[in-house]
Amino acid sequence: MEAIEELALAPCASSQYLRPYRLRYRQNGTKKFWDFMRTHDSVSILIFNSSRQCFVVVKQFRPAVYMCEMERHCPQDFQSKDQDSWFPLLDPLPATEGMTYELCAGIVDKPGLSLEEIACNEVLEECGYDIPITNLKRITSYRSGVGVTGSKQTLFYAEVTDQMKTGEGGGQPEEGELIEVVEVPLQDSMKFAFDEHFPKTMGIIFSFMWFQSNVALKLLEK
Amino acid sequence: MEAIEELALAPCASSQYLRPYRLRYRQNGTKKFWDFMRTHDSVSILIFNSSRQCFVVVKQFRPAVYMCEMERHCPQDFQSKDQDSWFPLLDPLPATEGMTYELCAGIVDKPGLSLEEIACNEVLEECGYDIPITNLKRITSYRSGVGVTGSKQTLFYAEVTDQMKTGEGGGQPEEGELIEVVEVPLQDSMKFAFDEHFPKTMGIIFSFMWFQSNVALKLLEK
Repeated sequence: MEAIEELALAPCASSQYLRPYRLRYRQNGTKKFWDFMRTHDSVSILIFNSSRQCFVVVKQFRPAVYMCEMERHCPQDFQSKDQDSWFPLLDPLPATEGMTYELCAGIVDKPGLSLEEIACNEVLEECGYDIPITNLKRITSYRSGVGVTGSKQTLFYAEVTDQMKTGEGGGQPEEGELIEVVEVPLQDSMKFAFDEHFPKTMGIIFSFMWFQSNVALKLLEK
Repeated sequence: MEAIEELALAPCASSQYLRPYRLRYRQNGTKKFWDFMRTHDSVSILIFNSSRQCFVVVKQFRPAVYMCEMERHCPQDFQSKDQDSWFPLLDPLPATEGMTYELCAGIVDKPGLSLEEIACNEVLEECGYDIPITNLKRITSYRSGVGVTGSKQTLFYAEVTDQMKTGEGGGQPEEGELIEVVEVPLQDSMKFAFDEHFPKTMGIIFSFMWFQSNVALKLLEK
């Protein structure tokens, strides 16, 4: 169980992670403004371990998800307008409110690497499987957060075996990552996908369904 | 075809739409910071017109998506660090680079209304169908933008008929909305979902697949 303690909140005047911009334009003659944020594109990978007939996903504490629930719980904590001052959160929710199940994923921030190379690195770093690029199958790409970020996400599928497991995964602690690797048995996967008690991204639900339609039948035929 | 003209960009020091915060906390003993943004939860609705055997989706110019492509095209336009000054975009891409196919959707910003009421309002405003709440089936909910916003999205399914069409839809022009209603024939829908030439959200791809697995077979039986 995660211990999340000593929470404090502050408005964020500038951030190296959030880059807000305003666009001014004329659309069909009407002058408009739109505030948006630049973020990196990303890759995510549906990992299926054929030795153990399970999906390999990750689970981590997500401050943004946690604070979404905290605003529901204590809306007054977000009222402080005083920049540069920390506001302690005196009535925190359990850390489980911010734990989220996600596909293995990473941002595209290394110009020299292909999407596939970044995907393979993430599979190794987060989940501990060392896979060749040829194991990756591109499923599709789509836009996320079209109102705010609009970044492009590319989804891959990778089939792995126990023999490819060379490490524990867990992310890069030196970058603050603390990632739990979770195995979801194939036979339970659709129940998991639609059980709203497990907070998760749409990527998990979508890719589990994609697997059922595109891979599961072939597995049965084997 | 959309005319998008006179584009100019500025860093955005404060915005009523983007509310950046920084969270400070201790996780399993390690002190951490995370920058995030508060946004509203949202609803989206997969609409299937059974009279015409097509999905009803929306298409609109999304500044965030457009600027994502502009940064790829002219990265130097984002280098200006001068706050409060507008930087004209002299080599704009065609507006089509920002046009995105999406499910009918809306943010949850009216405390007195249920998710279902908000969903019905959006179906009418954006797509012109007047549907009773009992026509909505909740599919599931999930977290979006877990790194930055973490907001909760709830996905509904609504079957409509031509008789329920009472208006043109198109959104609220007085709020700057300019939304095109697009019909995707059921028989073309999976091809559309996985054709990356049509920029779209994961919500469309996921919900079209969900329909195939959960509704299409029953339609054939009728």
